[in-house]
Amino acid sequence: MSGNTLGKLFTVTTFGESHGLALGCIVDGCPPGLVISEEDIQSELDRRKPGTSRYTTQRREADQVKILSGVFEGKTTGTPIGMVIENTDQRSKDYGNIKDQFRPAHADYTYMHKYGTRDYRGGGRSSARETAMRVAAGAIAKKYLREQWGIVVRGFLSQLGPIKAEAFDWAQVAENPFFCPDAVKVPEMEAYMQALNKEGNSIGARINVVAEGVPPGLGEPVFDRLDADLAHALMSINAVKGVEIGAGFESVIQKGTEHRDELTPDGFLSNNAGGILGGISSGQPITASIALKPTSSLHLPGRSIDVHGNEVEVVTKGRHDPCVGIRATPIAEAMMAIVLMDHLLRHRGQNGGVQHSIPDITRR
Amino acid sequence: MSGNTLGKLFTVTTFGESHGLALGCIVDGCPPGLVISEEDIQSELDRRKPGTSRYTTQRREADQVKILSGVFEGKTTGTPIGMVIENTDQRSKDYGNIKDQFRPAHADYTYMHKYGTRDYRGGGRSSARETAMRVAAGAIAKKYLREQWGIVVRGFLSQLGPIKAEAFDWAQVAENPFFCPDAVKVPEMEAYMQALNKEGNSIGARINVVAEGVPPGLGEPVFDRLDADLAHALMSINAVKGVEIGAGFESVIQKGTEHRDELTPDGFLSNNAGGILGGISSGQPITASIALKPTSSLHLPGRSIDVHGNEVEVVTKGRHDPCVGIRATPIAEAMMAIVLMDHLLRHRGQNGGVQHSIPDITRR
Amino acid sequence: MSGNTLGKLFTVTTFGESHGLALGCIVDGCPPGLVISEEDIQSELDRRKPGTSRYTTQRREADQVKILSGVFEGKTTGTPIGMVIENTDQRSKDYGNIKDQFRPAHADYTYMHKYGTRDYRGGGRSSARETAMRVAAGAIAKKYLREQWGIVVRGFLSQLGPIKAEAFDWAQVAENPFFCPDAVKVPEMEAYMQALNKEGNSIGARINVVAEGVPPGLGEPVFDRLDADLAHALMSINAVKGVEIGAGFESVIQKGTEHRDELTPDGFLSNNAGGILGGISSGQPITASIALKPTSSLHLPGRSIDVHGNEVEVVTKGRHDPCVGIRATPIAEAMMAIVLMDHLLRHRGQNGGVQHSIPDITRR
Amino acid sequence: MSGNTLGKLFTVTTFGESHGLALGCIVDGCPPGLVISEEDIQSELDRRKPGTSRYTTQRREADQVKILSGVFEGKTTGTPIGMVIENTDQRSKDYGNIKDQFRPAHADYTYMHKYGTRDYRGGGRSSARETAMRVAAGAIAKKYLREQWGIVVRGFLSQLGPIKAEAFDWAQVAENPFFCPDAVKVPEMEAYMQALNKEGNSIGARINVVAEGVPPGLGEPVFDRLDADLAHALMSINAVKGVEIGAGFESVIQKGTEHRDELTPDGFLSNNAGGILGGISSGQPITASIALKPTSSLHLPGRSIDVHGNEVEVVTKGRHDPCVGIRATPIAEAMMAIVLMDHLLRHRGQNGGVQHSIPDITRR
Repeated sequence: MSGNTLGKLFTVTTFGESHGLALGCIVDGCPPGLVISEEDIQSELDRRKPGTSRYTTQRREADQVKILSGVFEGKTTGTPIGMVIENTDQRSKDYGNIKDQFRPAHADYTYMHKYGTRDYRGGGRSSARETAMRVAAGAIAKKYLREQWGIVVRGFLSQLGPIKAEAFDWAQVAENPFFCPDAVKVPEMEAYMQALNKEGNSIGARINVVAEGVPPGLGEPVFDRLDADLAHALMSINAVKGVEIGAGFESVIQKGTEHRDELTPDGFLSNNAGGILGGISSGQPITASIALKPTSSLHLPGRSIDVHGNEVEVVTKGRHDPCVGIRATPIAEAMMAIVLMDHLLRHRGQNGGVQHSIPDITRR
Repeated sequence: MSGNTLGKLFTVTTFGESHGLALGCIVDGCPPGLVISEEDIQSELDRRKPGTSRYTTQRREADQVKILSGVFEGKTTGTPIGMVIENTDQRSKDYGNIKDQFRPAHADYTYMHKYGTRDYRGGGRSSARETAMRVAAGAIAKKYLREQWGIVVRGFLSQLGPIKAEAFDWAQVAENPFFCPDAVKVPEMEAYMQALNKEGNSIGARINVVAEGVPPGLGEPVFDRLDADLAHALMSINAVKGVEIGAGFESVIQKGTEHRDELTPDGFLSNNAGGILGGISSGQPITASIALKPTSSLHLPGRSIDVHGNEVEVVTKGRHDPCVGIRATPIAEAMMAIVLMDHLLRHRGQNGGVQHSIPDITRR
Repeated sequence: MSGNTLGKLFTVTTFGESHGLALGCIVDGCPPGLVISEEDIQSELDRRKPGTSRYTTQRREADQVKILSGVFEGKTTGTPIGMVIENTDQRSKDYGNIKDQFRPAHADYTYMHKYGTRDYRGGGRSSARETAMRVAAGAIAKKYLREQWGIVVRGFLSQLGPIKAEAFDWAQVAENPFFCPDAVKVPEMEAYMQALNKEGNSIGARINVVAEGVPPGLGEPVFDRLDADLAHALMSINAVKGVEIGAGFESVIQKGTEHRDELTPDGFLSNNAGGILGGISSGQPITASIALKPTSSLHLPGRSIDVHGNEVEVVTKGRHDPCVGIRATPIAEAMMAIVLMDHLLRHRGQNGGVQHSIPDITRR
Repeated sequence: MSGNTLGKLFTVTTFGESHGLALGCIVDGCPPGLVISEEDIQSELDRRKPGTSRYTTQRREADQVKILSGVFEGKTTGTPIGMVIENTDQRSKDYGNIKDQFRPAHADYTYMHKYGTRDYRGGGRSSARETAMRVAAGAIAKKYLREQWGIVVRGFLSQLGPIKAEAFDWAQVAENPFFCPDAVKVPEMEAYMQALNKEGNSIGARINVVAEGVPPGLGEPVFDRLDADLAHALMSINAVKGVEIGAGFESVIQKGTEHRDELTPDGFLSNNAGGILGGISSGQPITASIALKPTSSLHLPGRSIDVHGNEVEVVTKGRHDPCVGIRATPIAEAMMAIVLMDHLLRHRGQNGGVQHSIPDITRR
């Protein structure tokens, strides 16, 4: 619980720095009997992998995952699953010049204040490279949710800087490097990114995640609400600055009659709640949206100070995503899957898997 | 950890239903030696208390807190602080008619699916009345933060439905029933609320919270980031649908050069980060903003079903806030204070209170 | 988690000092639907209550428990159960003289080093009076275990100082003030205690606890083993200095062929394991034994120092049990019940209540 | 928290099966700045390593540890330390015959009931091989305690079956394969073990652990007492059936005047408390003793059943320690060090490292 563990019954603990020997994690609490292979996990990792398009960092990492424990004869045993990914394409010398500088909008300054030291190579522990292990852990959760419960967790990029997806088609999401559900906007996004790269600048993005098939009843009032735990998990992703559930900030200007999702025997009439009422899932799709800030590593010089307090001009070399949001979709899906998995187990613990004889208007 | 506990080293566990005998909480982990009295806590509770203006529920609760343990000769001893507030003005009969109905946008439907039963009187455990104990616990955290660390946590209402505060003056916040920092907008808000009451409707709101004086170094990467824990705590407040840190969703359209807060020996040049970088406090003010949905209890009829699955028309009697956001400012402050308190203790545990010799550009 | 909470899914958090206004606790995670009343809890509290025989402290506490939340129309709702017991018979003036002294074998010296202060009245938080709330919480766990799972948790005093129970009859346990299962030894114990009282001295004791009907499969390797969690819970009882599971220290001199509990289709042939193998319940009775040190509060003077470091002679006035072990049986039962309850819920969370088709040789 | 994590602020999470690819762990919460190398950890691992004498298993594992993260330029950074040990000398075919059998006194039967499956090779997760990672994690804790706080944690074997160490000399402990402090008894133990090996049997043992230099004030009443957490950690070691603190079970027959450790300005006059009063360290040496059952893997046939419920005769092949207690000393030391480390950080978190001006009679 010292900060690098997420969850109560289904827990994920990660380790690893951007330019260290390896990244790794321990997934504890996965029920026995789930058929899982390195390929299952790899396919999720490949969606997040750097270097897959010209719009992401050119660092070439195979991100090859190895399962070290917890799986026997192709199935989980119920014991902890250890996984590692070796780092192979570090170019740590790119970072020598920022060793004593604090890059603006990076964690350099705060890590130094916290620890008095830092592994400055590629951002060390604060690098988004750490999220590879979240995706690996999330792959296990996603598979379990899908196979055992029929729950599907999917995400997409809804906005890239000023460009919003307007049309929506799940089928499109896998067809472009942005995870954009609106095919029409893809060329626009491509052009935008090219201009941005030329400029040496970066941009923010908005990602949406949806879980369908979640049974009603998940979430523990009052602090471990499902929405609160989702907010925690999503906000813990590097660069995230905002989290919305359902109508989110739109709720501020909604009237009660507008916001309330009326119930009928055939289902809810709307989903402003984002599938969560009183911190507990309602059976409707769970919808969340997150804001990602623009990448902080820029080739454009910025003002800063060094460790001695002197003014310096910082230029970040190294290879970076011009928009961290682009690769964030699989990460957000992973986080949502991990939280749901944990709450499924917690709920099952408390109520023993009993289905109460309450009409379920979402299962018609 | 079964859902009603918040924090790791400074923990708050609450109990109590809207119309039960009493609300209560245990604050565990408060360091010894803090001078604290029931009056200190009462003054915070009075800020949240129902019935203080015509814009809040007319339920009349004294909300008189009693400290049962953990304080000896006026000071905390380091042992758990037990507190209770007796409920006195329940009018449970108002709720007889909704016993078998699911009020839209309420937790009725989800509690029934989770537990197979619920204390329907006034929303039972899902009522915002539970937040009284958060304010009581937060009062202890706020006092400790202020007296021992010079940290001040304050909040305000930045938007009431369509009306945004534009001018900003901390001094105004305590001068009106809305916690609005813009005196000019207060009459507008009053008129808006009167029209709303007449209509029988409700409205959403936005609340901002700020912590000043927070030292750099608080927050535990990678999951227990300070921003992630704040998001968790703030999203756990009833009716909250969105949380932003710093620039929040504005980050989506910001370029890197715009978002990054440059550093100079005399301080940061902006605060888009909201005082948190890499999950760790930077020494700048920590800023968060939350969206609160409109109150779900409405006198205007809504469509729903009953526990047997039949269509019903629901009208919520009882006494309710037409805008839950109005009384949410002290609650949001309490949540931020509790999270900061916990992270202060956690950080001190890990680094032993050492101040590293890193230039602190926020303490000039 | 700051020290006063036990459990993961079924949690108990207590507060209260010996001579404060009240003791209290929050039981979180109790499944809904359990029929429970104050009487159910009271009957367990009465077994531990002071002043019931001449062999326990003469402090007269009604120990009247009040349920403040979590129970609606006679049944648990799944929300946290708040309980309090008011203190009524404090005689704090008895303690004025030890305010600045450290009583040998008491927590006075260590509390002062930890906190720099202490509520010296009756031992404050370190008093065994705190265990009343454990018994109250345990009463809920015991009832749930018995009614929902057929698990019975019972204890007895197996040794009072030099006097060992030799015969064994559960029916005798409730028939004497010592919880002794051997009727023949009761007069001997009475005589021993009378001599001890005259002498002004105190004595240790050994208590055994047994849980019957526990299904196989409870316990989480490798750290949260069922035996490890039992050891934690039992050792957390005031005055306990040793914990054994099954054969305990006898195992040291056993050979493998002697210790191993062989299996047959009709059951195990012995129970040296105490019902736990590899940290997981086997279906056999779970057996534990604890050592309680003699009461530290003595009328016989002892050497010590005061807060200034001066030598003093300490005589403890106040009313005390000459053998804390005598009232410890219900407390040990409560701790075992709480641990089992927690592990039942945890196990059910992980495996969903599935019964694997493995022969269960303990259920014939 | 799903069972494979120990600690709150200094946490250790392990993974790995006896015959899997690798064992590993994550140590989270180690403060930055500790000089640590693989050699430091290896030297502890070598003390536990199999195959070092004829009295331990003949499995030949190099137990070569690799640090994958959290250490930069030779020092800890404050981020999680990932470590792995590859398994190299598995002989899994030895276990084919017990695939469908439940070995008596093993976790086979209970794992099958819990999980419905198990990695039967060498005991899988229930193998004591898992403790290698505890020793690795403990090596970090031990080094920190020693270097930063002057705390020394050491253990020894006090009894091997019927043979008790009588003389005591720390210097002898490292001089014989039994960790026995009494040189005179070593030949006797050797003879005993040779006879035992010939017989094909196994034997129990008792191990003592001592921490010297622990400051007063560590431990969190009432559940997270230092002794309760030690009992938890020590009982979680494979084969442990009993835990004593200080006088332990001897307390049962002690009178109050005998047990109480009187205080003088020059120190305590005895240490029946084992350095812990009211769950908090007193500054005296912390002493604990544990009972280890005889190894369950025997070449002598035993009665059991198979997964279908049929009677079988079990003979365990494979290579095993005839006395698991012999290699348990470094493991017990590791567990005590981890618990102390965690409590040091927790205490420092709560009291900020303040030394209260209370006379410390143990530091003269």
